[in-house]
Amino acid sequence: MNIICDKSKLLEGINISLKAIPGKSTMAILECMVIEAKDGMIKLISNDLEIGIETIIEGDIKEPGSVAVNAKVFFEIIRKLPYNEVSISVNENLTMNISCGKAKFNIPVKDTEEFPYLPKIVKDKSVLISQFTLKEVIRQTVFSISDNENTKVMTGELFEIRGSQLKVVSLDGHRISIRKVDLKQNYDDVSVIIPGKTLIEISKILNGGLDDEICMYFTDKHVLFEFDNTIVLSRLIEGEYYKIDKMLSSDYETKITVNKKDLFDSIDRTTLMIRESEKKPVIIDVKDTSMSLAINSGIGSMSEDIDISKEGKDILIGFNPKFLMDALKVIDEEEITMYMINPKAPCFIRNMEETYVYLILPVNFN
Amino acid sequence: MNIICDKSKLLEGINISLKAIPGKSTMAILECMVIEAKDGMIKLISNDLEIGIETIIEGDIKEPGSVAVNAKVFFEIIRKLPYNEVSISVNENLTMNISCGKAKFNIPVKDTEEFPYLPKIVKDKSVLISQFTLKEVIRQTVFSISDNENTKVMTGELFEIRGSQLKVVSLDGHRISIRKVDLKQNYDDVSVIIPGKTLIEISKILNGGLDDEICMYFTDKHVLFEFDNTIVLSRLIEGEYYKIDKMLSSDYETKITVNKKDLFDSIDRTTLMIRESEKKPVIIDVKDTSMSLAINSGIGSMSEDIDISKEGKDILIGFNPKFLMDALKVIDEEEITMYMINPKAPCFIRNMEETYVYLILPVNFN
Repeated sequence: MNIICDKSKLLEGINISLKAIPGKSTMAILECMVIEAKDGMIKLISNDLEIGIETIIEGDIKEPGSVAVNAKVFFEIIRKLPYNEVSISVNENLTMNISCGKAKFNIPVKDTEEFPYLPKIVKDKSVLISQFTLKEVIRQTVFSISDNENTKVMTGELFEIRGSQLKVVSLDGHRISIRKVDLKQNYDDVSVIIPGKTLIEISKILNGGLDDEICMYFTDKHVLFEFDNTIVLSRLIEGEYYKIDKMLSSDYETKITVNKKDLFDSIDRTTLMIRESEKKPVIIDVKDTSMSLAINSGIGSMSEDIDISKEGKDILIGFNPKFLMDALKVIDEEEITMYMINPKAPCFIRNMEETYVYLILPVNFN
Repeated sequence: MNIICDKSKLLEGINISLKAIPGKSTMAILECMVIEAKDGMIKLISNDLEIGIETIIEGDIKEPGSVAVNAKVFFEIIRKLPYNEVSISVNENLTMNISCGKAKFNIPVKDTEEFPYLPKIVKDKSVLISQFTLKEVIRQTVFSISDNENTKVMTGELFEIRGSQLKVVSLDGHRISIRKVDLKQNYDDVSVIIPGKTLIEISKILNGGLDDEICMYFTDKHVLFEFDNTIVLSRLIEGEYYKIDKMLSSDYETKITVNKKDLFDSIDRTTLMIRESEKKPVIIDVKDTSMSLAINSGIGSMSEDIDISKEGKDILIGFNPKFLMDALKVIDEEEITMYMINPKAPCFIRNMEETYVYLILPVNFN
């Protein structure tokens, strides 16, 4: 193999490819990315067996071939090269020579025999969505997946398509996050659970342009994301997702509307009173036109009043402050509305159109 | 005690005061800062028994008094207050009330009986220096102090004043850093060892203005830094400093002049070939008008040629790349000159005027 390419283009490709390189693996080949130069195309390929990525980079192929190189070593070297033009060649002893200006590196590489190439996927059911929208719905829901591998289904997000609507759901046993977005056309029904890790990596790679689109293909076992010069293939999580519709309710006894930033900042201040070992709730006392937040801990106590507008009953209710803050952080509206029934029933933060619904379970206190 | 002050001014003062708060201490009182409101002045005082700091902040004293408050908790609360005007009061039960807009915090505080106030220092021998200059000489030398507490003297820096010249020296057994700066007037002789930790904290506090001055007072056991609204008092390290003059030499067999950035970047690239567990030297081969850097390790090999101008013999010599980079990083000149005798003798990087001298021991290789 012998190729010449631009340091900057190569780095862009490596940065994408690194997202499917495991931190540490018992299989050394997984810590490698494959550089494949054939049919006039240079591809970087990586695969941690959960997520696989192929990305095409620009460059001149002087001699085709393919080789597996330790991804992190390769990245560090390319990153620190002095000039833009890089020449990369591999000899018959599996030594890669990287040359740039007067700097020359020699590193051992592997052949690609053992490398787990991405399986071929039948591109059948496809859905088109803007990169911006996909990136946004991931950000607005992914914080409430669970990291408990014993409840595998909770480590992923439900992607459900009905007609022209995509609904994305995550939950961790204490809260549920739901976002709905409109697609540009109607599609066949889809209902899959995509691993949270895949979504996090995808949203790091996406440039997030409003006009840039991404195409998702679904099969029984896989989801394939296709965009720009890159494809990302991920396994789906098997199993059935929770029936969340039963957990949702539009009944309420108390409805309050409050400035989001005021509420967020005030809850943030209550968290100053929480030591990591303590699980202290913030207690919200809704009375007439004001809500008072209070917290009491080994460090001290804190209280603050916030103006609200209210319909319905007064209520005294406790929350894990982190759960409230996580939801508030991803809502873009200046004002939010909270719906509560009683101190033991879920609280809902949602807008009129229900394009977002955040359910948060209260906690006991006394 | 009852005071009213500006959040921003208070935060500035706390940030300075925190530099003498230990990360973790067996004495809870050391994790506190004292707020002292008396004689129309509000002072923050902290002392980790190595370094003590007093800083004056603006504010209104409604009722004088003094109290010790956990520094980190106090800092976090003040930092997150919603508005600028802060009211701080302490009641007879040693509860501090911090109030700002509608946010109210109550935290327990201590009385100041156990607090180790700073000893009074006789302000006798004083030296005036610009904050910029002091900050610079610290940065340019402090990287080569040792962190080995068994050779206590090496954990500090020699500050030596002769006439109108200040010489600052640090060494760690592998290298020596020397910087000389001119003072604006003549002073009596001073020769003290200031703890590296003190210098690091001082340089974090100094704003570094060219026209802002700092006054240093020396006693047998202490150095006192006085500037702006702050004093920093530090113990000195006892004992005698190394006789470094015997280690310096102006003889050389090889003198090379090289572009600093080219050399730095190239050494930086060689370090890509070093695993943390390996201690691989970079080998420098000086021949005629070029030097070639090479390194060989378990990761691979790297080589690069750099243009130089040379006087004297060719030489093949090995270095710990970090030691070379540390010195190059703090030299501002575009070109540097290296003086070498043989592969076993120290290498010197110095300018003509010897306002800086960096001695680096080579390492064996074969």
